[in-house]
Amino acid sequence: MIKSEYYTQENHGPYEIYNLGDFNLEEGDVITNCKLAYVTFGELNEVKDNAILIPTWFSGTSKNMETYIGSERALNPEKYFIIIVNQLGNGLSSSPHNMPAPLNMANFPKVRISDDVRAQHKLVTEKFGIYELALVVGGSMGAQQTYEWAVRYPDMVKRAAPIAGTAKNTPHDFLYTQTLIEAITSDPKWNGGNYQSCTEVRDGLKRHAKLWSVMGMSTEFYKQEAWRLFNVNSLDEFISGFFEPLFCEMDPNALICKAWKWQRGDVSRMTGGDLKEALGRIKAKVFVMPIDTDMFFPPRDCEDEHKLIPNSEFRVIKSICGHIGLFGAEGTDYSDQIDKHLSELLAMPVIAEEVR
Amino acid sequence: MIKSEYYTQENHGPYEIYNLGDFNLEEGDVITNCKLAYVTFGELNEVKDNAILIPTWFSGTSKNMETYIGSERALNPEKYFIIIVNQLGNGLSSSPHNMPAPLNMANFPKVRISDDVRAQHKLVTEKFGIYELALVVGGSMGAQQTYEWAVRYPDMVKRAAPIAGTAKNTPHDFLYTQTLIEAITSDPKWNGGNYQSCTEVRDGLKRHAKLWSVMGMSTEFYKQEAWRLFNVNSLDEFISGFFEPLFCEMDPNALICKAWKWQRGDVSRMTGGDLKEALGRIKAKVFVMPIDTDMFFPPRDCEDEHKLIPNSEFRVIKSICGHIGLFGAEGTDYSDQIDKHLSELLAMPVIAEEVR
Repeated sequence: MIKSEYYTQENHGPYEIYNLGDFNLEEGDVITNCKLAYVTFGELNEVKDNAILIPTWFSGTSKNMETYIGSERALNPEKYFIIIVNQLGNGLSSSPHNMPAPLNMANFPKVRISDDVRAQHKLVTEKFGIYELALVVGGSMGAQQTYEWAVRYPDMVKRAAPIAGTAKNTPHDFLYTQTLIEAITSDPKWNGGNYQSCTEVRDGLKRHAKLWSVMGMSTEFYKQEAWRLFNVNSLDEFISGFFEPLFCEMDPNALICKAWKWQRGDVSRMTGGDLKEALGRIKAKVFVMPIDTDMFFPPRDCEDEHKLIPNSEFRVIKSICGHIGLFGAEGTDYSDQIDKHLSELLAMPVIAEEVR
Repeated sequence: MIKSEYYTQENHGPYEIYNLGDFNLEEGDVITNCKLAYVTFGELNEVKDNAILIPTWFSGTSKNMETYIGSERALNPEKYFIIIVNQLGNGLSSSPHNMPAPLNMANFPKVRISDDVRAQHKLVTEKFGIYELALVVGGSMGAQQTYEWAVRYPDMVKRAAPIAGTAKNTPHDFLYTQTLIEAITSDPKWNGGNYQSCTEVRDGLKRHAKLWSVMGMSTEFYKQEAWRLFNVNSLDEFISGFFEPLFCEMDPNALICKAWKWQRGDVSRMTGGDLKEALGRIKAKVFVMPIDTDMFFPPRDCEDEHKLIPNSEFRVIKSICGHIGLFGAEGTDYSDQIDKHLSELLAMPVIAEEVR
């Protein structure tokens, strides 16, 4: 364990911890005393059918996703019981920096999207006794988890809204993520994942941040100097004042853990590699919601998957911010689109489960 | 000077050398005994109006551009006198590795696109006595030079075909190129540009190659396993068998020199930053030819510039290979498009110059 000034209740909370006990991972390892950090909003109704689950994205924690909910929003805590759950390895849930030896730091086991979703399933069913989710919604790696939920637990997920992500990661996206990994691991201070503080790996983290600035936005974003949306006054300040601070406080092992997981997100692992069969299992009403300028989950890739889902609609979100549109820097120009689609989706009737 | 097994007549020739003498650069430095490597095909006619000039791209030499010409092609040496000229810093023309001290290696001066075009102008006029170019055509950094030619020497350039490049580099492209630079300079063996052999900087060159594999192609390219076009049998082999060999033999200082130049390509430097005025100076008939899947010179960026050129047509090239479509791995599917457009452009009448 190393001390982190970043992954704290002050920065990201208040959040709760649920201890899953020893949790078996798909790759064969076990996380002892596996902990999920989560936060809830609203009240679970008596029949327990008003729950919404929101998993987190690569750089994010539950704090990011809180910006998606509100009493005037589609994700309304006055109507729904909303659970935001932090993915394994994100710094709040069990993660390289907060695990005791021998699973700490570079020895933290390989985690898959499937592990996250099975862990979240335990939280939802064991802790809350919920067997029906009105909606699972998440962006980027949160979309990967959303797809995994809809395929793995088709009777349980009534609606699903994967935003800016895919059910099966593309080879191109795998390569991009590999460059993110190598930006960090090529820093001599990375030292195989064994360092005393993330600040030692600052050079690598800065290169990692720079790669995000290239693939994470759009060419039009920079031409129109839309970095002003991020309250900075120059391109240089956008890098040094937004992207570098965003990543440089994070734990490099946490980023590597999540990047490995991201690279391998693939619901067709449940069907021997048959993506059509996997997506065909989904019973949820699905809104596939790519961002139009997203360079690593481009609409075209999302549309191909949308066509394989039985009850799906293709809803493209407009943003000049590329994948980073997810951060909502465009204010209501972004959130109004999200809310419009999610409101519509939530208003759609679903077939009640006969047998539970 | 360091020995290079790569930049040889055997690999890239036969090519000729033209010595410009001492050549003043825009940034204020002087390249002593500045040498341009070039190759010609065909015969210059008596009135000297059948010359075509082809500058080179980032990773390329004149050898690459030879694949664009042929007696059955638009760039037909039986009709035209074709000059392919290597850009400064590309390893064949005056470059960091082949300059004597004190301008060698890390001390090689900063070169701009404008320097290349002024140097080429001397070659064309002084060596060959040519004052009219039937066509300037180039891809990527070759397109940057093409635009510079058309704006800087508007009376001389009758037709111009910038392929997969822009007249003014975009901020997004600047950032991408910065990641290319940092992939190399972050290698401790880079040592500020002072090394004995490019093989010492192999880790950095490999990361540089990986970045090309992400931004240089398209997501669809990888989904369709179109790397088979490059005579490889797997994605891993595409990286290790195509991209890494492509770049790992090149001189890191040469790549850094060209990357710096690429980042700053901008014809509006001639008009105090007014791009509209600069492109408005062009008298050539222009075909703006982006590649549809190009991620760093996307059609949208090229179209914005096309609209500012008085006598321009917008001709999009279809390729699944993104920017690397320029390499022509798709065979006639690619070259037939290029030839169709260039043939049409070359057949267009131009206004003869009254005063020379």
